[in-house]
Order: sequence, then C-alpha cells, then structure tokens
Amino acid sequence: MDRNAPVGVFDSGVGGMTVVREIIRQIPDERIVYFGDTARVPYGSKSKETVLHYARQIMEFLKTQKVKAVVVACNTATVYALEEISRETDIPVIGVVEPGARVAAAATKNGRIGVIGTEGTIKSGLYASYLKQLNSSFEVIGKACPLFVPLVEEGLWHDSVTDEIARRYLKELKEKEIDTLIMGCTHYPLIRSTIKRTIGDGVSLVNPAYETAVQLRRVLEWEDLIREEHSDNIASQYEFYVSDSPEKIQKFANSILSFEIHQAHQINIEEYTYDDDRCTDNH
Amino acid sequence: MDRNAPVGVFDSGVGGMTVVREIIRQIPDERIVYFGDTARVPYGSKSKETVLHYARQIMEFLKTQKVKAVVVACNTATVYALEEISRETDIPVIGVVEPGARVAAAATKNGRIGVIGTEGTIKSGLYASYLKQLNSSFEVIGKACPLFVPLVEEGLWHDSVTDEIARRYLKELKEKEIDTLIMGCTHYPLIRSTIKRTIGDGVSLVNPAYETAVQLRRVLEWEDLIREEHSDNIASQYEFYVSDSPEKIQKFANSILSFEIHQAHQINIEEYTYDDDRCTDNH
Repeated sequence: MDRNAPVGVFDSGVGGMTVVREIIRQIPDERIVYFGDTARVPYGSKSKETVLHYARQIMEFLKTQKVKAVVVACNTATVYALEEISRETDIPVIGVVEPGARVAAAATKNGRIGVIGTEGTIKSGLYASYLKQLNSSFEVIGKACPLFVPLVEEGLWHDSVTDEIARRYLKELKEKEIDTLIMGCTHYPLIRSTIKRTIGDGVSLVNPAYETAVQLRRVLEWEDLIREEHSDNIASQYEFYVSDSPEKIQKFANSILSFEIHQAHQINIEEYTYDDDRCTDNH
Repeated sequence: MDRNAPVGVFDSGVGGMTVVREIIRQIPDERIVYFGDTARVPYGSKSKETVLHYARQIMEFLKTQKVKAVVVACNTATVYALEEISRETDIPVIGVVEPGARVAAAATKNGRIGVIGTEGTIKSGLYASYLKQLNSSFEVIGKACPLFVPLVEEGLWHDSVTDEIARRYLKELKEKEIDTLIMGCTHYPLIRSTIKRTIGDGVSLVNPAYETAVQLRRVLEWEDLIREEHSDNIASQYEFYVSDSPEKIQKFANSILSFEIHQAHQINIEEYTYDDDRCTDNH
C-alpha cells in the first residue's frame, strides 16, 4: 500500500465536509479524495438496502482513486453499511459512530446519553449498542430530528423556527436529564449553538467528526500509512467529486473550509458496479 | 396501441399520489401503474441533467409495463424533462405545469399570478413562460419554498411552525397583490389550508393535479384510448412501484386514497438504461 496515496472520505452530500475539516486540522499533510452523493441525497430517510447499495458503488469509485483508507463521514451510511463494506475490502474503513460513542462514554458522568440523528441512524440503535458494549449500565435515549438537515440547508442556523423545532425535538432528552448529547449527523454541528442553548449548558455536546479524525490518524500510524510528502499547493492536495452538479458543494465547502475549492468533479456514480456474489448480504 | 393498457404516472416520491387521486376521481376505470423514485427523492434541489437522467430511466421502466400514456406527476421532472422525454417516445406524455398554468390564466382577474414550488421549478421559470404565452401582460412572481416538503413529510400539516414558514415564504407574493397562486409541487395541496389562510381568502389557489387529470382524460379521448373494460377488483387496477422499500408509500397512499393499497413493489431503477445516442441532450 502506498503511504502517499489519498484518504477517501464519503458522505450522502456536503455535510461530510465537517469531517474533512477536522481531518485537515489534525493531519494536514494527508491527501483527501471526497465524494458527496448529491444526486441521491439524503440517505437518512431511506432503507438499509438502498444505502448499502449506494455505499458499495461509492467504494468502487474510491478504489479507482487508489485510496489507502476510507472514512464514512455519514452517520446513516456508517449505521447501514460500515460492517459490510469493511468486510469487503482490505483497506481500513472508519465510520463516525464508534468514535462518537467512545467520546460520549468518556464524557458522561450520570450515564444518561442522548443521541440525535436521522430516522435511519436512530432506528438502527447502533450508537446505543456501541455505548452499551462500553458500559452496559448506560441509559441511551435516541431522537430522530428529520427537520434539522433541511433547516441547516435553508440557512436558518440562527433562527426562531430552528429554536422552536429544537425545543420540540430535545424536550424528552431534557426531561430524561441526559448529561451528554451525541450530534449523530454531520449537519448538526452547524446549529451547535441552538442545540447547546436548548439542551442546556450542563450537557456535553459530542461532535463525532473530531474524534473520527483522531481515530483516522491513529489507524494510519498503526498501519504505517502516514503520508511522508508535503504539498505546497493546497488545492492539489484535495479532490472533490459529486454525483450532481458541482456548484453546491463548492459554495458549501468554501463556507466551511479555510481555503477555496476551485473545482469539484461530477461523476455518474450508477456506473460503478460491484460483484454481487462477493457480498454476503443480498440486495 | 391497446386502449386497455394502463396509464403510467411517475413522481420523485410519494407526492404524485395526489395526482393519482384526481385521475381516479375523474376516470375511475383507467388502470394506473405508479412509480415513485423514493430511493433518489427529492428532485427539487437537484440539477436538470440529473433529473432528466432519472426521468429517462423511469420511462424505460414504464415501457416494460406497456403503458399507453404517461403523466409526469412531479413539477420538477416536468420542468426539467417533459420536453425531452415527450420527443423520445410515441405515446402521449402529460406534465403538470401546462395544465396548472391554464387554470391560473383562466382564474386571474388582475393578471398577477404567484407560483410556489421547489428550487428547480422556480429557477426554471417554466410556469412563467407558459403563462406569458397565454397572455404576455401577466406578471408572474415565483418563490421557492424548500422547507414545505420536509414540513409536510414530518406531518406538521396544521402547526405553528408551518404557519411561520408560510408567512415568510408568501410575504412577497402578498405584497405584490397576486390574486392567483399556483401550488407548483405535489406536496403543497396537503398544507392547502395553511397556504390559504396565509395568502388570504381573496387569492385563488390552483392545484395542477386536478387539471392534469382533466387533460389526461381529454388526451385519451382524442387519441381514442379510453379504457373500455371495467374492473370489479379495485386493488388489481392500480399497481405501485418504488425504488426504495415499499412501506412508506403504502402508509402515505393509504392516507390519501379512498382504498387500501395492499402491495407496492420495489425495483432497481438504475438497471433501466436507455440509448444515449437517441437522446438529443448530452449528459
């Protein structure tokens, strides 16, 4: 494996850029190939079967980019596909759920942990099952927040409507007196201040993006895959691919990253087929 | 062409069911094959290129169902794909935009017409261009309402948050003193009462679904394609296909239609390929 090869990062859309930002902060010399499935976004309300099929196509695309490791920067895709796609490849594949669960487990004092995310992420109970592996006495309360993503995408980051929706979604978690809350969707850190104000200062907010980047660094070190080169031209170090037209991701990326993305490439992700027989899960 | 063949109806998801409802009311003997692209929903925020590609795949699927006519029950797909897919087939293809524009043109007295819809529908200006063909002195004011679909899907049909969002979206249309408002998205009739209350009683609300069904009946009569048989078993008369898992559409259909849908079928829509060379538009 070429240690100077890029790391693949994928998401259902542009939200995974919050994970890219953390990777750039922590291991700035790594090259990154990002894929955002903007033609089929969102994943959060779709079935496991569909999301797994999409993740497998994306893995085929990332293989053509000769990546040395993959970060699944989407909670729903981690929940529905991480286990299968990890088994189906030889390179390390890191999801956002386990790192998020580990930080929450370390942060909680009263053992009551809240998880917010898409319908798929919450229904799966995957955060709860990781948390209970770490400490079976944890009480985990999940709450799907399907309006948060459209509110973020509509730009209502600081708005009375977002406040009101947050009050409703977080009501039960407040009543159950959680002391730790996992933001189980890559869009949520963008309305962090609303979530923080609504749930209260006493509750620790966990952003899995940060810890995912820490785990990526550890895995690359462990596998002796840390890049040895250094790029002077930052634009050439990061490549962005999407399945719908590239304008949106450029706008979003430029609002999140500390440098300008000059170009994103559009690909037809449906063309990336995989061998059904190799997959243990029928679909 | 077999006059007893079914009519194909497609939408990005489940919203097109409001059009199915109108067709059933007006031509109850027709058989219908519905396809909802639930694995790739929504279309409203995606590019023309992507939506046209999806529409072409769906036309290939509907061909396998031997449909005698197609209704594009999705405003965004009508806007981005109707012209191309009509040209690429021999059967009649009816969209929702032209019928909606005709009713609005007949309804307005002061010539100021509002159009609400997805980003794609509004950006295209297609309602405005149809309306201006009918009467060049019309003033058409479009407003994209991206949060309406998620609010409807979250079930907030009668809710203070939906009221507040409606107030913001419709503010400019009110100020411009429109007397007619086209609900240019199949989800919007489900929050008709909120829209009506917000925009005011003096404004006529146009639901293109109704007029689309009228136009379908006219076209079938004109082409001598009205079905001559009568089904006693209503369940066998309508077939529902989706690209994601079928539970959601069954729930939604059962809340909209006057009979129970017992079964919806899932298909892999990506498998329906078309001949690029026949298409005049490169993608």
